Amino acid sequence: MNTVVDTRERILTTARELFHGRSYADVGIKEICDLAKVQKGSFYHFFPSKQDLAMAVIDDMAEDWAHGFVAEAFDRNLPPMERLDYMIDAAYYWQKAAKDIEGRMPGCLFGNLALEVSTRDEVLRAKLNAVFQKASSQFHETLDEAIEQGQIAPLDAQATSQAMLAFLEGIILLAKTRNDPEVIRTLGPAIKTLRVELPMEN
Amino acid sequence: MNTVVDTRERILTTARELFHGRSYADVGIKEICDLAKVQKGSFYHFFPSKQDLAMAVIDDMAEDWAHGFVAEAFDRNLPPMERLDYMIDAAYYWQKAAKDIEGRMPGCLFGNLALEVSTRDEVLRAKLNAVFQKASSQFHETLDEAIEQGQIAPLDAQATSQAMLAFLEGIILLAKTRNDPEVIRTLGPAIKTLRVELPMEN
Repeated sequence: MNTVVDTRERILTTARELFHGRSYADVGIKEICDLAKVQKGSFYHFFPSKQDLAMAVIDDMAEDWAHGFVAEAFDRNLPPMERLDYMIDAAYYWQKAAKDIEGRMPGCLFGNLALEVSTRDEVLRAKLNAVFQKASSQFHETLDEAIEQGQIAPLDAQATSQAMLAFLEGIILLAKTRNDPEVIRTLGPAIKTLRVELPMEN
Repeated sequence: MNTVVDTRERILTTARELFHGRSYADVGIKEICDLAKVQKGSFYHFFPSKQDLAMAVIDDMAEDWAHGFVAEAFDRNLPPMERLDYMIDAAYYWQKAAKDIEGRMPGCLFGNLALEVSTRDEVLRAKLNAVFQKASSQFHETLDEAIEQGQIAPLDAQATSQAMLAFLEGIILLAKTRNDPEVIRTLGPAIKTLRVELPMEN
């Protein structure tokens, strides 16, 4: 294995796990280096600052999401509204697996970071906003298809897709606060009832 | 004015503002003491630990909420479903006012803290969970009344009230990430479309 890639990967994986399980401010570079068995000099070679590291962690997680459970849930071969059920299921099993291992439900790394850093780091805020925009575009496509196929009545697909993403983040937030992934399974299916109506024509 | 009360209040107000505008981990006791013009010894007299301070901040904010915008929005004299519109409006104007002053939308202090500390502070997690339980009971009462008056079709009021609270937290999260309170106003009214159906009878 390429040692350079390996070192960078080790830092990334360690940081992602710690940020996700605790918080951004709570985890120091020294701790990451110690756990990843990397010298500080080497760390700064790859990541000039903690912010650079966070940017890479977000990219890494977004990449995994896009090719992992989001790709599976938003499979074009599934009937559009069924994709939403898959997505809720995937979120539930993901959080349940994490809790089974750690004893604590970690929630959504993007949501966690967004609430923690948005008021004080404009670069990270913009990055997280872009991740959410991309995620809501998946909902948007799904809704467009569902309308086209006559499975749901026409609605404001742009706004409804954002409302659905907000709901997903909200149920994960509530589930994390209760430390109970079942909240996602109980409340999740209501995502399909959300509707922002089209503006009325005059 | 009573000096003891005054000192405690100054610490509380300062901490609440800093935690809300930044994060729990990002704000140190020294900074709070400096800004509140309080000696460290005096601080520890009122709050033996930072956790004790956070508990008091949550109580203080919950109290303000209960007597402030929640009481106004969930006014029993309003038709039940209109209360939800008031609640969204109140959340929007609250966040807008904060952004107009600070340049940054702070979000919901409870949601912020819940995502930041739930995996590593069981006491604060339980406290925040209790705040959310109380908040969702307001939605629950509203839904019960709306069903009783025949304004909405029967539904699982317990689960739907939690879904509504989750949605509220979710749209505030998304709005904070976009640093744009308008997100609350655009997506908020969809809260009334959320439904968790009653379990089907066999």
